[in-house]
Amino acid sequence: MPDTITMQIYSIITKTHGFIRQKRLWWIKAPIIVICLLFTAFHVSDASDVSSSFSIYTSEIRDIKGVKISIDLAWTLLCGFLVFNMQAGFAFLGAGFLQKKNTLNYLAMSFMDFCIGAIIFWAFGFALMFGGSYLAFGLDSGNTLIGHSGFFPSFGSFDYSTSKLWLFQMMFAAAASTIIAGSVAERIKFNTHMLCTIALCGIIYPIYGHWVWGGGWLANLPFGSGMRDFAGSGVVHGVGGLIALVGAWMVGPRFGKYNPNGTPNMFHGHNLSFVVLGTLFLLFGWFGFSAGSTLGATDLRVSVIAVNTFLAACTGAIAIMYITYYDTGKYDVVMTCKGSLAGCVAITASGAYVPHWAAVAIGLIAVIILKASLYIMENKLRIDDPVGAISVHGANGLWGLLSVGIFADGSYHGVRGLITGSGWQLLSQFIGCIVLMIWTLGLGYLLFYILRKTVGLRVPVSEENTGIDVYEHGLPCYPGFS
Amino acid sequence: MPDTITMQIYSIITKTHGFIRQKRLWWIKAPIIVICLLFTAFHVSDASDVSSSFSIYTSEIRDIKGVKISIDLAWTLLCGFLVFNMQAGFAFLGAGFLQKKNTLNYLAMSFMDFCIGAIIFWAFGFALMFGGSYLAFGLDSGNTLIGHSGFFPSFGSFDYSTSKLWLFQMMFAAAASTIIAGSVAERIKFNTHMLCTIALCGIIYPIYGHWVWGGGWLANLPFGSGMRDFAGSGVVHGVGGLIALVGAWMVGPRFGKYNPNGTPNMFHGHNLSFVVLGTLFLLFGWFGFSAGSTLGATDLRVSVIAVNTFLAACTGAIAIMYITYYDTGKYDVVMTCKGSLAGCVAITASGAYVPHWAAVAIGLIAVIILKASLYIMENKLRIDDPVGAISVHGANGLWGLLSVGIFADGSYHGVRGLITGSGWQLLSQFIGCIVLMIWTLGLGYLLFYILRKTVGLRVPVSEENTGIDVYEHGLPCYPGFS
Amino acid sequence: MPDTITMQIYSIITKTHGFIRQKRLWWIKAPIIVICLLFTAFHVSDASDVSSSFSIYTSEIRDIKGVKISIDLAWTLLCGFLVFNMQAGFAFLGAGFLQKKNTLNYLAMSFMDFCIGAIIFWAFGFALMFGGSYLAFGLDSGNTLIGHSGFFPSFGSFDYSTSKLWLFQMMFAAAASTIIAGSVAERIKFNTHMLCTIALCGIIYPIYGHWVWGGGWLANLPFGSGMRDFAGSGVVHGVGGLIALVGAWMVGPRFGKYNPNGTPNMFHGHNLSFVVLGTLFLLFGWFGFSAGSTLGATDLRVSVIAVNTFLAACTGAIAIMYITYYDTGKYDVVMTCKGSLAGCVAITASGAYVPHWAAVAIGLIAVIILKASLYIMENKLRIDDPVGAISVHGANGLWGLLSVGIFADGSYHGVRGLITGSGWQLLSQFIGCIVLMIWTLGLGYLLFYILRKTVGLRVPVSEENTGIDVYEHGLPCYPGFS
Repeated sequence: MPDTITMQIYSIITKTHGFIRQKRLWWIKAPIIVICLLFTAFHVSDASDVSSSFSIYTSEIRDIKGVKISIDLAWTLLCGFLVFNMQAGFAFLGAGFLQKKNTLNYLAMSFMDFCIGAIIFWAFGFALMFGGSYLAFGLDSGNTLIGHSGFFPSFGSFDYSTSKLWLFQMMFAAAASTIIAGSVAERIKFNTHMLCTIALCGIIYPIYGHWVWGGGWLANLPFGSGMRDFAGSGVVHGVGGLIALVGAWMVGPRFGKYNPNGTPNMFHGHNLSFVVLGTLFLLFGWFGFSAGSTLGATDLRVSVIAVNTFLAACTGAIAIMYITYYDTGKYDVVMTCKGSLAGCVAITASGAYVPHWAAVAIGLIAVIILKASLYIMENKLRIDDPVGAISVHGANGLWGLLSVGIFADGSYHGVRGLITGSGWQLLSQFIGCIVLMIWTLGLGYLLFYILRKTVGLRVPVSEENTGIDVYEHGLPCYPGFS
Repeated sequence: MPDTITMQIYSIITKTHGFIRQKRLWWIKAPIIVICLLFTAFHVSDASDVSSSFSIYTSEIRDIKGVKISIDLAWTLLCGFLVFNMQAGFAFLGAGFLQKKNTLNYLAMSFMDFCIGAIIFWAFGFALMFGGSYLAFGLDSGNTLIGHSGFFPSFGSFDYSTSKLWLFQMMFAAAASTIIAGSVAERIKFNTHMLCTIALCGIIYPIYGHWVWGGGWLANLPFGSGMRDFAGSGVVHGVGGLIALVGAWMVGPRFGKYNPNGTPNMFHGHNLSFVVLGTLFLLFGWFGFSAGSTLGATDLRVSVIAVNTFLAACTGAIAIMYITYYDTGKYDVVMTCKGSLAGCVAITASGAYVPHWAAVAIGLIAVIILKASLYIMENKLRIDDPVGAISVHGANGLWGLLSVGIFADGSYHGVRGLITGSGWQLLSQFIGCIVLMIWTLGLGYLLFYILRKTVGLRVPVSEENTGIDVYEHGLPCYPGFS
Repeated sequence: MPDTITMQIYSIITKTHGFIRQKRLWWIKAPIIVICLLFTAFHVSDASDVSSSFSIYTSEIRDIKGVKISIDLAWTLLCGFLVFNMQAGFAFLGAGFLQKKNTLNYLAMSFMDFCIGAIIFWAFGFALMFGGSYLAFGLDSGNTLIGHSGFFPSFGSFDYSTSKLWLFQMMFAAAASTIIAGSVAERIKFNTHMLCTIALCGIIYPIYGHWVWGGGWLANLPFGSGMRDFAGSGVVHGVGGLIALVGAWMVGPRFGKYNPNGTPNMFHGHNLSFVVLGTLFLLFGWFGFSAGSTLGATDLRVSVIAVNTFLAACTGAIAIMYITYYDTGKYDVVMTCKGSLAGCVAITASGAYVPHWAAVAIGLIAVIILKASLYIMENKLRIDDPVGAISVHGANGLWGLLSVGIFADGSYHGVRGLITGSGWQLLSQFIGCIVLMIWTLGLGYLLFYILRKTVGLRVPVSEENTGIDVYEHGLPCYPGFS
């Protein structure tokens, strides 16, 4: 038995060596080696720093200030956990929307982009995004364009506040990546999506995020209160949805999606019960996504945010269901689920700033935008988006940013939209939208261009026909069912 | 592209206009138009009210009182989120219990009754239920029979406490509606259930709820501590389960359920793994349902409540599993799941008032009531209840109310049951049960009578045979599986 | 109708009587009768004790100390609820890993061992484990080997702190039992697993737990800080995983698993989407499992713990995915899920004591141990473990214990591992591992030996071939699908 273990370890070391020497997989190896080197450089002297920060952890909660820290910590962590549960929602939703033969592939993509995104965000992204924000211990270097402190946050030089902020924000970064997975599903190479995730969570997302949440220039625009995106309609859903747009366009439609004359064919998902379940888990997690973005429950606004989120979701679902019924005579469950999610995306930026009736209005308008966007993508631009991520997250992410400039009533942090008679905030939001589009569409194009020239974007068409599950993962999703 | 958007918007406006003019769908339109008018009336001057309540939101948490508000806010919201997750439980459970051909229909019903119920409860129900209760800002008008303040609660005239209370209570109202969906499933028209939800969440539920939780007459009965229903065995599960009884009876049994000689046939659910999963998610959410009903974690009783809830669930599951095993020689998974839920329903009213050993006793008795009720419904009254909602929620809701009068030990809010030697509390609980039955069975009959005379209750029998999924929603639940 | 109820109750009483008289099922009856007698003995005078503890429940939260109690109560309960949600994770995971014909059986086992485990832990286990620990009210009798106070904790002689501690700890005890269910699945008798659960949650788990967490001798070893197992790598996963090892060995491999020449055959799970979903729900619950083990959010270390847990999970998933890819050219989803869980198990003991970079290292090493252990179990020892529980929970549970002695940096409760230059802590951890193996393998062998000699371990081979679902539960898992 000990021999076997030794042999296993030896075999792993040998393979690692071969892996490093070999040329074929350089595109996997390069980032891994760079990360390992940086990792070593940053941490070789870590254990010796312990004493300096020891006092932070043993601080006793003795006064109101300490108690508030503790309440806010508990709230933020629990909300972060709820956001993690959205991964179950995305998994259900995507699996339900897709064809049986590609289900396992989507599940693997959405799970692994989260894992890889988290590690990359730990290594680089977090530092680029929050360096200079002073939102937690150790984040004191950074300028208005980019942050540069907080790389590889690790105990020794960091404390509980950094870990808390990282956990919550990492969930957001990785969620952006999962949004992309849906729109390029059923044809992209598995590893291409992983590389896309590295670029997204390491560079594209954190830099735009820095501008809005990390003390960057967009948050400090001189119009109104500066650009405001409360919980990430733009930063998370807009970035994810717009890169999904570039990705779905560059990867091209699924084989058979469009007829020679340009008319689209409908691909039904293989399990619509998963679509409904996925929507329910996403809504469950969305409470944490929105209401957790106060980073604390001592900000009593959290209840208003949670209610706004839910009202927008309900309004979106009801409105699109009856609109679709009026068109087709059927209560379309898939559209209903998309409608509720579109409402959620739209309210995400404005949930803290608007009254409850505005949440209903924002949800209603989100549905119109969703319908228009789905129509344009499917029939005009002919971009094949299997789960509707571009329209749900991208189009409504932009609408969410604008909605702050319209419906904010001035009751929270003084953000005043059109309904209070001031148009300046809307200008800030509009600039934020334009910058978001230029940044993500531009870098997204560059990213997918590089990926196409190097590792390639699509699986072979023969494998697409038989299903990516077996091609990439060696097994169908339901081996014992058929 | 802009033209396309304009055209889409124009087309939506045109359709809306046609929709309003057309006579055919008056029963959809009437409530929508009424809601829209009320909505406008209430909010046209909303933005101008902002300054008056501005200070509430910016209040800083400076003392123990402020910190307690913050803890209770976090606790209530998080528990409310858990209650929302019960929708995933209901979805799994119902989908598992039903036939494959009606799965999508049940999922759509249980999702959409939640959305519609929430909006109606926001518009009317909340005000009827909690007006005059003084439980949150703005709820100061109402009498012992009905509340009349808090319509369309919206920021401007309301504050965080109102949003918090609404969020938590809305989850309960909408859950009552989902309970009904199970017992009328596989034959009711989709839209009929939506109209039923509007009546339930707008009128039937909130008025009974006002009597018990909103400062109404039942809570102030002169016997014992007045009627007590801690987390809603009667208010939520009793109301839902008894209207489910009326609904299942008036809609009639599924085609083929009963043979000409009156003996029932067994319809197996199509996916029993979903039944177990649904039960697990319901139990998960039930912790929030029960322990959240303190509306705050500064009431240290929360841990006792959570433990009581879980002990009753476990006892119910174990007891019915071995009882069924003794009858049939098989460990019946479906009955086991129902048993654990019956235990949960029964402890819901009494969880805060009874010692842990009583939770075990209440769970055991719940199982006997469940078995008796299932037998009576199936074989004597011949009411077809596909998921057992009447017996789980209705019969055990009533038992839960009575159990307060028996096992309350006087340690919480002075509620003393039979085990302390006093019978007065049991009298109050008994009156509450009788009133509950008269109110819900009476109004429930009226409701379904009106629905039968107007929109009709059942789908055509031919469609019932081929499956409601395709008839109502245009798609089967598993399009790519067969 | 009343007659029917009376008859039902009468029939239940008659059957209970027959059940007690009959000799055949003595092994079910003996524990039930013993429990009932003890139950009565402990509680007959319970209601009279109320006044003595009444003040505890009505204590008002007036100062910082009271507020801290309330925050810690909320945190521990909510984390406990998350741990309960891991049952959904186990259910998904197991159902996905197993063959279609045994799915319902696994779901029933994993649900019911939780229910039975909870009741047994309420009756006996909790008292044996925490008696003498002074961790809550009423736990003041016990010595370094075993506790003996807190039997049948019930309101009257207990208070909120006891209920809180019980709820959180019960989740752990019952989880250990569910771990075993996976490795003996597809061939063990249902009731044999229930009896195994009674022994585990009533005796084996709580006594080892007492030594580590209840103030016993292992926690007070004179080397380093004594043995430390923060959230249960050893106490929960090690105990569960090692008894799973004994169980899987004594029950024997599934029919057809090994060829006559000793080479193993691969049995594919029937639904790999459930494997991914189960992993996601387990990770979601694991945040509560790890970060909740502080028993309070006023210990600010919780954010560090949550981040460590997640980093180890991500690292495990990524590492094993690329290692497997290098071997096979496929991204193996099943192995990836196992890798992330192995990382979680390993970090569970050390999450509070180590810096973030060490969590990455621990996750990487966990993957090597997982691969080696899977290979040894499958090919060398020829122990058939359908879900990999022995390698994920057992082997990595031991590694988790050791990792505290290596990576602890002294910043939390002064626990210092090898990286601070001290080897004493590692010695304590090593002793803890040895004791764990002797205790669980020894008692586990005794337990399964007794079970084999009395009720038997395996279902008949004919029933194993056709599927246990129908044999034990009377129904297949998907009655309406085929």
